[in-house]
Amino acid sequence: MDKRNLTLLTDYYELTMMNGYMVKGMSDTKAVFDLFFRTNAESNYCIAAGLEQAIQYIKNLHFGEDEIEFLRRTGDFGEEFLTYLKNFKFTGDIIAVEEGTVVFPYEPLLIVKAPIMEAQLVESALLNIINFQTLIATKASRITRAAAPGKVIEFGLRRAQAPDAAVFGARAAIIGGCSSTSNVLAAQKFDAVPKGTHAHSWIMSFDSELEAFRAYASIYPKSCLLLVDTYDTLNSGMVNAIIVFKEMRAKGLKPVGVRLDSGDLAYLSKKAREMLDAEGFYDVKVFSGGDLDEYTVTSLNLQGAKIDLYGIGTKLITSYTNPSLGGVYKLAAIEQEGKEFPKMKISDNPEKVTNPGEKRIYRLISNQTNKALADVICLKDEVIDPDKPYTLIHPVDRWKTKEVSNFTVKPLYTKIFEGGKLVYKCPTLNEIYTKTVNSLEDFWDEYKRIEKPQLYKVDLSDKIYDLKQKMLNELGSKNR
Amino acid sequence: MDKRNLTLLTDYYELTMMNGYMVKGMSDTKAVFDLFFRTNAESNYCIAAGLEQAIQYIKNLHFGEDEIEFLRRTGDFGEEFLTYLKNFKFTGDIIAVEEGTVVFPYEPLLIVKAPIMEAQLVESALLNIINFQTLIATKASRITRAAAPGKVIEFGLRRAQAPDAAVFGARAAIIGGCSSTSNVLAAQKFDAVPKGTHAHSWIMSFDSELEAFRAYASIYPKSCLLLVDTYDTLNSGMVNAIIVFKEMRAKGLKPVGVRLDSGDLAYLSKKAREMLDAEGFYDVKVFSGGDLDEYTVTSLNLQGAKIDLYGIGTKLITSYTNPSLGGVYKLAAIEQEGKEFPKMKISDNPEKVTNPGEKRIYRLISNQTNKALADVICLKDEVIDPDKPYTLIHPVDRWKTKEVSNFTVKPLYTKIFEGGKLVYKCPTLNEIYTKTVNSLEDFWDEYKRIEKPQLYKVDLSDKIYDLKQKMLNELGSKNR
Repeated sequence: MDKRNLTLLTDYYELTMMNGYMVKGMSDTKAVFDLFFRTNAESNYCIAAGLEQAIQYIKNLHFGEDEIEFLRRTGDFGEEFLTYLKNFKFTGDIIAVEEGTVVFPYEPLLIVKAPIMEAQLVESALLNIINFQTLIATKASRITRAAAPGKVIEFGLRRAQAPDAAVFGARAAIIGGCSSTSNVLAAQKFDAVPKGTHAHSWIMSFDSELEAFRAYASIYPKSCLLLVDTYDTLNSGMVNAIIVFKEMRAKGLKPVGVRLDSGDLAYLSKKAREMLDAEGFYDVKVFSGGDLDEYTVTSLNLQGAKIDLYGIGTKLITSYTNPSLGGVYKLAAIEQEGKEFPKMKISDNPEKVTNPGEKRIYRLISNQTNKALADVICLKDEVIDPDKPYTLIHPVDRWKTKEVSNFTVKPLYTKIFEGGKLVYKCPTLNEIYTKTVNSLEDFWDEYKRIEKPQLYKVDLSDKIYDLKQKMLNELGSKNR
Repeated sequence: MDKRNLTLLTDYYELTMMNGYMVKGMSDTKAVFDLFFRTNAESNYCIAAGLEQAIQYIKNLHFGEDEIEFLRRTGDFGEEFLTYLKNFKFTGDIIAVEEGTVVFPYEPLLIVKAPIMEAQLVESALLNIINFQTLIATKASRITRAAAPGKVIEFGLRRAQAPDAAVFGARAAIIGGCSSTSNVLAAQKFDAVPKGTHAHSWIMSFDSELEAFRAYASIYPKSCLLLVDTYDTLNSGMVNAIIVFKEMRAKGLKPVGVRLDSGDLAYLSKKAREMLDAEGFYDVKVFSGGDLDEYTVTSLNLQGAKIDLYGIGTKLITSYTNPSLGGVYKLAAIEQEGKEFPKMKISDNPEKVTNPGEKRIYRLISNQTNKALADVICLKDEVIDPDKPYTLIHPVDRWKTKEVSNFTVKPLYTKIFEGGKLVYKCPTLNEIYTKTVNSLEDFWDEYKRIEKPQLYKVDLSDKIYDLKQKMLNELGSKNR
């Protein structure tokens, strides 16, 4: 994101609404918006990601001459509004869940409280940035959980959905658990070590595979990893790789591994392992790529595949089996003349009815097990006393209750912007990765299972539930 | 893309191979690479897109001090190589299929012929750029064919996979057939007219829906389109919209339409149409959004839904049901000391065996019907004489032949770079859109069907087929 001016990265209706608010004398009205997702089709939990780029976007917001002239030409905006844009900057408050935190449906990842015109403008870009990185961090978390920690490198540049998706997708993949990336630009930007060896074209540009392997080994004696599937994995690639590895051993060098990218990886990896072991190359690793994800990696594990490290591309960087997180940005309250009025959207689909009011989230961690008991979404002025038992109540089926006690209360939000001023220091990618590991550690494995996980309790406080019922009754009668 | 330096947007192995080629004295070796896809899981044809951004990427290629320093720190590269990078620029040739052209599996969309180090560097970014835009242009073509021309606006910014995907995805969507986009930045960049109205938050920030509608109508009397599903589509939204439309009519104003975004769109659109017609609002349109794609739009049509215009987001901008085009970049030939040697990759998977040699593609168009008969992939020096009958031969099942005559031969490639110099003027987005319409016009509807299309013939010339067989035999024996 850096210094790019993405101010116009917004849906046109944000601008027509902003202009509308000004015309209607609502410039001073403050709004509170919640950014949350209602479901992740594939995962119970998500790993929050994208906050750093969201911050850069907010910091860089400004309308230059070109942008204002483009808007003037549409004919939809008055001069008063265009002059306002000239001096536009974000002056509001933002609180957010830190990157690397485990989050669940309906929990706002980010809350914007700002003059309604500012809060409206940033909707589209904030959703774009946070939806994508959270989606990929979550997918990476699932894949690396299937493969085992540190066993996955992100390899998806060529299949990512345009350049930013490659760069920020690599970042999110590392947040989610990948050990590195093949993407050099992403590595440079986020201070990672890029990884990679050679392609089929390297082999093909020499007269023979053996010659190509020898050349590679001579240039990279310390990081010699050979791609063995250009012509015939077992009958040519592995045979030639072992010839070269023996030559290296004779010179006192340690080959790193072989890479399998096609064919039956369960079978080929076991055969490759056997061939390497038969020659005493016990430390030489088997790397594997191809169109893998958490499902195929789990299957390979079950089949006893002998794969030490995975390079995962397409299905990680596009979250292929679930290519979108449907995050939304909904009005929760309006503040006029110092008074806050909660707001909600009704819908025929009950799951689309929003939760009104300005919120906070608390994670209750058992002092006995150090594992999370539940999250509680409540209004901002509510307090949970850790010294008293607390009754969890199901957000919809209110008769489902559970009393918990002896817990620590972890607030999920951190202040990011106050009065337009950035008050948060972004952690490094490595620090965020650690945060992910720790946040996942708070949860029992049953909640993190790849298929059919146990649902984690996210409860709605009585106060917010009562407010919702009251508003549903009032709004229902007023607008019908 | 613009002036951003994306030189490091490459997989690390491209750089280690480049260094390897230099060390092995192959700096002067030229390589020919084909960029093609083997299949599009969902579509018979694709709409080529992304060339303009590929050109900008190539033009901007250079290594600055920061990039070189980052590479030096990896310890994998010698100073000779780093000095070479300092003066790096692209000096090769590129030919390509123009954007908006209908293309098929195995047809190179772009052919790079350049010193092997240059040709290797650009692999990852070219694939990233062209895979994504071709994917989205194709999806947009399918959706707009289902909805009817001019009936779809791209609405996917908030769900696109990071900012570039929103901007270049909107571009590709217009290439594929969308009439516009809600994305203001994309509209500004590509000279389109951005579209949009208001969100649920507009309604919710007023005391009542009626008040919010009246406010919107007073500010945008010429483009008044009202979102009617905030509280209750038929009992509240439509009723209030019609009240406001009547007030507008009394003042001689023409309301534009209503927008339905949730619920049963088939039912609601018919009811909304009836309510509008009952009050004489025959010209007022029904707009609709929600999670639609070519399948749901087809279903809505079959159910007799009364939708005049669609706003399509998530499933278009991510190509949700098929989120990746598996384009590859494969070595086709090597030129050493002025002599060209064809190259190919063998694989256990027959569909992964590449076609060797430098290629051209010709589209044979019947002079009787003006419809395409077949495409022929041949070697670059082959000629197809339009005055003689031509025998089409199946690329694998060679006994399947068909003689065609009385056709026009359309070469598919245009020169883009010659000796590193850009020799192509990029058309405007509008011109490309027209190209798409014309290129699709060359094909019978049976080839463009959304499900189970008739397969279009893409034949391999005898010369290239014979070369392939000869090389398969030779390589097979040499590397086993």
